[in-house]
Amino acid sequence: MKKAIATLAVLLLPCLAAGQKAPAPAQVVQAVRAYRMENEDRIMRELCEFLAIPNIASDTPNIQKNAAHLMEMLEARGIETHLLPITGRGPVVFGKLLSPEAKHTVILYAHYDGQPVDPAAWTDGAPFEPLLRNAAIEAGGKRIPFPVNGAGLRGGYNDDWRIYARSASDDKSPIVALLAALDALRAKEIPLALNLKVILEGEEEAGSPNLQRTLELHKNLLGADLLITADGPVHQSGRPLVFFGNRGDIGIDITVYGPLRALHSGHYGNWAPNPAMELSRLLASMKDEDGRVLIAGYYDDVTPLGEVEKKALAAMPDNDADLERELGIAKPEGAGKKLAELIMEPSLNVCGLRSAYVGSQAQNVVPDKAEASLDARLVRGEDPQKKFDQIAGFIRSQG
Amino acid sequence: MKKAIATLAVLLLPCLAAGQKAPAPAQVVQAVRAYRMENEDRIMRELCEFLAIPNIASDTPNIQKNAAHLMEMLEARGIETHLLPITGRGPVVFGKLLSPEAKHTVILYAHYDGQPVDPAAWTDGAPFEPLLRNAAIEAGGKRIPFPVNGAGLRGGYNDDWRIYARSASDDKSPIVALLAALDALRAKEIPLALNLKVILEGEEEAGSPNLQRTLELHKNLLGADLLITADGPVHQSGRPLVFFGNRGDIGIDITVYGPLRALHSGHYGNWAPNPAMELSRLLASMKDEDGRVLIAGYYDDVTPLGEVEKKALAAMPDNDADLERELGIAKPEGAGKKLAELIMEPSLNVCGLRSAYVGSQAQNVVPDKAEASLDARLVRGEDPQKKFDQIAGFIRSQG
Repeated sequence: MKKAIATLAVLLLPCLAAGQKAPAPAQVVQAVRAYRMENEDRIMRELCEFLAIPNIASDTPNIQKNAAHLMEMLEARGIETHLLPITGRGPVVFGKLLSPEAKHTVILYAHYDGQPVDPAAWTDGAPFEPLLRNAAIEAGGKRIPFPVNGAGLRGGYNDDWRIYARSASDDKSPIVALLAALDALRAKEIPLALNLKVILEGEEEAGSPNLQRTLELHKNLLGADLLITADGPVHQSGRPLVFFGNRGDIGIDITVYGPLRALHSGHYGNWAPNPAMELSRLLASMKDEDGRVLIAGYYDDVTPLGEVEKKALAAMPDNDADLERELGIAKPEGAGKKLAELIMEPSLNVCGLRSAYVGSQAQNVVPDKAEASLDARLVRGEDPQKKFDQIAGFIRSQG
Repeated sequence: MKKAIATLAVLLLPCLAAGQKAPAPAQVVQAVRAYRMENEDRIMRELCEFLAIPNIASDTPNIQKNAAHLMEMLEARGIETHLLPITGRGPVVFGKLLSPEAKHTVILYAHYDGQPVDPAAWTDGAPFEPLLRNAAIEAGGKRIPFPVNGAGLRGGYNDDWRIYARSASDDKSPIVALLAALDALRAKEIPLALNLKVILEGEEEAGSPNLQRTLELHKNLLGADLLITADGPVHQSGRPLVFFGNRGDIGIDITVYGPLRALHSGHYGNWAPNPAMELSRLLASMKDEDGRVLIAGYYDDVTPLGEVEKKALAAMPDNDADLERELGIAKPEGAGKKLAELIMEPSLNVCGLRSAYVGSQAQNVVPDKAEASLDARLVRGEDPQKKFDQIAGFIRSQG
């Protein structure tokens, strides 16, 4: 988040109103960094308080608590805030901070809801009780206490330390980082050269089913020159990434039904069709061994990359081999293409499988059903409804 | 269980010691039925008390409680009882009831442990709180109170009523039915013509890992002319079935590992191999669409059925079409063979699948692993270790 604060502070300064003396970006970064080191404790406390509010989109009371809390956070910075309501869900939190004489307006998008959680899977800690580790879990990080506030703390947070909580990275930190950047500029008396608007969504992880409708209803608020989405990955090398587009995503749940009730596998196996096997067969028929989707026409609508994009991709650092080692991947999919190229293509991914029970809970049954959840990423040129119909049509054709 | 009591009572009378007047089987059935109708309340109470003791094989304290309770039940009938211990598990409960002048000895096998349970899946009731329904759940059965004991109760239990609890059918009822049959014969002063032994196992559903060793250790107790296993299905028509052999069963857990941690499907999909997809591909490669196993040599060691067996199979009632309707099966596996024939063959069944999360809990990830549990039924002529090696070899050959 440290880099994020400085980056966001610079993004707020791309051009200055005439007559103002423009501080050089390097100076701004230095000033903001100084502010951050003096205020780490306060910034981290704000983040942790925010992370402690459970934020699953379908958990109506809590997601609305997040929005109310956000509104306070924005208004404390003098940002004019409106809650654009969505029935039963968290509202879109809209904020506006005008700068005298600014000629341009930037909208920053982020979301305050998080992915669904299985608390039982958080074996060391809990999703909504933020804790600090002295490194990432993958690097063997252990829990450590938060540093105690005091004069000696300046810059006391080590670069390897990590906060663990649902949405600690995706996507509450960018919101806190933006507000810290605003605080820093103000403290260092560096004027904002832009009008700033924010759109903070409360159901991105649920597929943003109401975002378009809600924004269209409040179109009058949304005039701007540029929209920045603060919800993308850093490069695996740790370097910040700027994306110039986003893939779309559709989620698909498949349930294969077997016998009306689970049957004893000794008494009915070989005769009763097994839905777990049928589902396996269906999924296996969707992709080849290189991960290429076999559904007819799956890649037909893709707008090919232009020369500029191809050059940008080629210029990206290639650390695929490091990643393979780090993630324990013997051979990636994609027939030799680089990760950066592959995520420019449409995808079809199995997010999860479930049928009856496994391991020590396994029962000797022909299950009554088998479920899979898939997600399909869409690229430029593709229509989500058409894609869905393509996949559904394929499933139907397999019987 | 009503039929079971009469059937078991008759089984105890296949031949009589010389000099005794043999009551005709029909008379015995009548006498036992009369006893049962007079004592339904007592018999059901004994069953329900037994069902209320949790009986998962790995739940050491409770499974041992079952054994202690069983010992009391047997000793109350004057059966000499020994607990043949298994460390950390429920003992084999061995019982012996000698009849003066009996020339033959029958061993009756049953098991007092049950399949693993997921209490959350018992949406109306709980696994170890037996309850009564006025019909099977599939037939729309609703909970009803147990009839109150009294003079008017004689024969008060309706034939359609069902007890629901873990092991209510598999396999505690046969034990209670046997004891009720003994009580009935004694009450009606019909002498036992056989020596009776019982072997009651506490980890059948866990694969009987210690049964052979334990019985070999106590071989001296086990002399007998016939062993009857009271752990098979009734025919779907409701008619009792006598099996003249049992298939074996091996359980196999497969885990396919993907990246070392679950990855964001948008950032790594198309590149990181997906273990749920790999598992699907593996399972799909194991069987063809008719359910025939494609693993090389899978059927090679099967001892073919003889003429007698074929005739017996052909003479069995064929209600496959009814079953298909009842279970909602559009087309069974087995390329047109009957259920009764198909369960004479080796099988390979997917008992369950699990990988990350599905439905509303789904996360947009490439999962870190995918698991399946399989069970393979073995027939005469097959060796479990060889079968396991065959399956494991196939998995290895698929990479």
